[in-house]
Amino acid sequence: MTREMIRVLYDFPPGVDPEKQGRMLAIGQTVGSFRPDQAVRFESWTGVLEEAFVAPDGRGRAKVAYPPSNVSGDIGSLLVMILGKYSLAGPVRILSLDLPAEYGTRGRFGLSGIRDLTGVRNRPLFMGIFKPALGLAPEDFAEILREVGMAGLDLIKDDEILPDTPSSTALSRVRACRPVMDEIRRATGREMLYAVTLSGSASRMLDQARRLREAGANAYLVSPIACGFSVMESLASDPDTRLPVFAHPAMAGALGGSPDYGIDYRVLLGTLMVHGGADAVLYPTAAGSLPIDPVVERELRSLLVESGLAPVPSAGIHPGALPRFFSQDDPRVILNAGTGLMDHPQGPAAGVRAFHEALDRLKTGASLALDSLPEGPLRQAILKWGA
Amino acid sequence: MTREMIRVLYDFPPGVDPEKQGRMLAIGQTVGSFRPDQAVRFESWTGVLEEAFVAPDGRGRAKVAYPPSNVSGDIGSLLVMILGKYSLAGPVRILSLDLPAEYGTRGRFGLSGIRDLTGVRNRPLFMGIFKPALGLAPEDFAEILREVGMAGLDLIKDDEILPDTPSSTALSRVRACRPVMDEIRRATGREMLYAVTLSGSASRMLDQARRLREAGANAYLVSPIACGFSVMESLASDPDTRLPVFAHPAMAGALGGSPDYGIDYRVLLGTLMVHGGADAVLYPTAAGSLPIDPVVERELRSLLVESGLAPVPSAGIHPGALPRFFSQDDPRVILNAGTGLMDHPQGPAAGVRAFHEALDRLKTGASLALDSLPEGPLRQAILKWGA
Repeated sequence: MTREMIRVLYDFPPGVDPEKQGRMLAIGQTVGSFRPDQAVRFESWTGVLEEAFVAPDGRGRAKVAYPPSNVSGDIGSLLVMILGKYSLAGPVRILSLDLPAEYGTRGRFGLSGIRDLTGVRNRPLFMGIFKPALGLAPEDFAEILREVGMAGLDLIKDDEILPDTPSSTALSRVRACRPVMDEIRRATGREMLYAVTLSGSASRMLDQARRLREAGANAYLVSPIACGFSVMESLASDPDTRLPVFAHPAMAGALGGSPDYGIDYRVLLGTLMVHGGADAVLYPTAAGSLPIDPVVERELRSLLVESGLAPVPSAGIHPGALPRFFSQDDPRVILNAGTGLMDHPQGPAAGVRAFHEALDRLKTGASLALDSLPEGPLRQAILKWGA
Repeated sequence: MTREMIRVLYDFPPGVDPEKQGRMLAIGQTVGSFRPDQAVRFESWTGVLEEAFVAPDGRGRAKVAYPPSNVSGDIGSLLVMILGKYSLAGPVRILSLDLPAEYGTRGRFGLSGIRDLTGVRNRPLFMGIFKPALGLAPEDFAEILREVGMAGLDLIKDDEILPDTPSSTALSRVRACRPVMDEIRRATGREMLYAVTLSGSASRMLDQARRLREAGANAYLVSPIACGFSVMESLASDPDTRLPVFAHPAMAGALGGSPDYGIDYRVLLGTLMVHGGADAVLYPTAAGSLPIDPVVERELRSLLVESGLAPVPSAGIHPGALPRFFSQDDPRVILNAGTGLMDHPQGPAAGVRAFHEALDRLKTGASLALDSLPEGPLRQAILKWGA
């Protein structure tokens, strides 16, 4: 008869009383105000402060348990409850979030579904990004796709900053690329996935998603922090949008970058994505130029993998970085490279070949040290980006 | 032939080079990388760093202009462009955002539309909140509504933390309250508005919004920062959801509270709401317990009023606070009171009467000083909450 609760660990700067704040959260974010004589009547809706202490670093911590029946099984009402209005009260940061396993919306594909679609097993998948982000015509997308697809790339995505605009509609891109994906399948036996960016109002995005699928799209790219987790939830549950959903971390730094405010990346890009319908989650890596704590990065990846999602480390990905992200024991990763693939000195196809060359060497236990490499795409990549 | 650009003023902590960051934003958030020989081809998509300087307080500022044609006319793709991936790079805060006047989705009602519906002119409107937030049955809502509506309340709203749950569906609340709103209209001649909370996935929220309107709902409450501006854009544009949209600031502190990260409240609760489809915007006041800079509060209200929206100061609203929010010259405000109305010592109806009594006194130039007040609801309110 014990209910599984939603548990949130809050973090406060030194000087803030975690017990007082924890009580405010437990009551204020559930039943709001009530008179003491009403306490029994409202008990089943009331949050519970389970723990409050000052950590050795001087920061306050409070763990609050909330009844799942207070929210709608979505991320939006969950965020309103666990942070919502209280966020306006002062510095507070969500460090961890435990949700009942069945809470929310689960992606229908995950990494194994993506492997089923692409037919790629037992190795990391390689993903590229159409570059430059803006200013290309549909034919340019088709041409780039042909080059990298024939060279062995598994997936490609729009840059997240390329939305649906009159000068480059998502539909025109999919229509230009679908025949090329068919060509690639005939030539290589692999279905290449192209994650196309959705944008606009919620109804526009969902309508667009249906049309794109009809036109042959085989994956979606969304930025749930910017456009709303609610849209991703619909994409992941509506029957007409049954395609893998790639979640982009755009805006994550605004919510997760501050040490005193917002939501830890493991929750924002992990827990919320897992329970919000994502199949694959892009995130920055400590190897790239975007600062992320290596421990946070590692735990985020573990959380995604354990939940069956595809972790997609992005930024700073080039062939020489492969050993950091891949081991023979654990190929559960999609490596997403933009410039580290497209800007290869010998062109994008050589960029793809360099990744495969690096993978083949690592599989046989060979190193990527420059002086051990024969002339070819991998050597050129290591010369440019290092190992 | 000059294009109207989207202009963003960024703020950086001391020690960050605003010129370097401004260039990264202008290029990285538009065309991404390109070779110098491609610069002309991609010029019309490229952002422009217009200004970069270190302010007297030591903080860096950069003003970047972006082509509106790079985005989809929505808030989601706008946020991806102006903050997006760059937010992961380190501390940055959006201080101001200038959008072309016609950008985005405008609310179909605004304050004047809300006045048309309620029939209340030339005075501030009074809004209440159903309390406690959770645990009430539909009949409880109807009972509270009858009491405050007959006493002269103009609007009421769900608490934002009361979503659509099996134990209290939004539909059951509207069905219980609609006949009472009809009673109130017959008795007082006024249509009272009840802003009902929407929650769930995007398609669920939009579907729910249509059903609620069919069942007699006459206003919506959404938390766009938590559930997505994209949903508000659809509510404000779909023909079947033609009702005033009240936007709640839940989660605003997580994005706007930090001095170094995120988005200034004037942009987050002002510009983005105006261009994202809101008719009325709730925001914290410096008179309440939630910290907000009084200058920010004043400028936010001005921005909303100038854009035709209803400013809805919330938290810390009680009858004695009226002079802070109301002048005879400018009645353009909806005062939103929760406990400051519902917890009146003589009950919610007396809470409503206390607001009207305070308004009547202020209109005649009388003061709210305790010793000038006759016995009655206002005096009781001032005794409890001060003036």
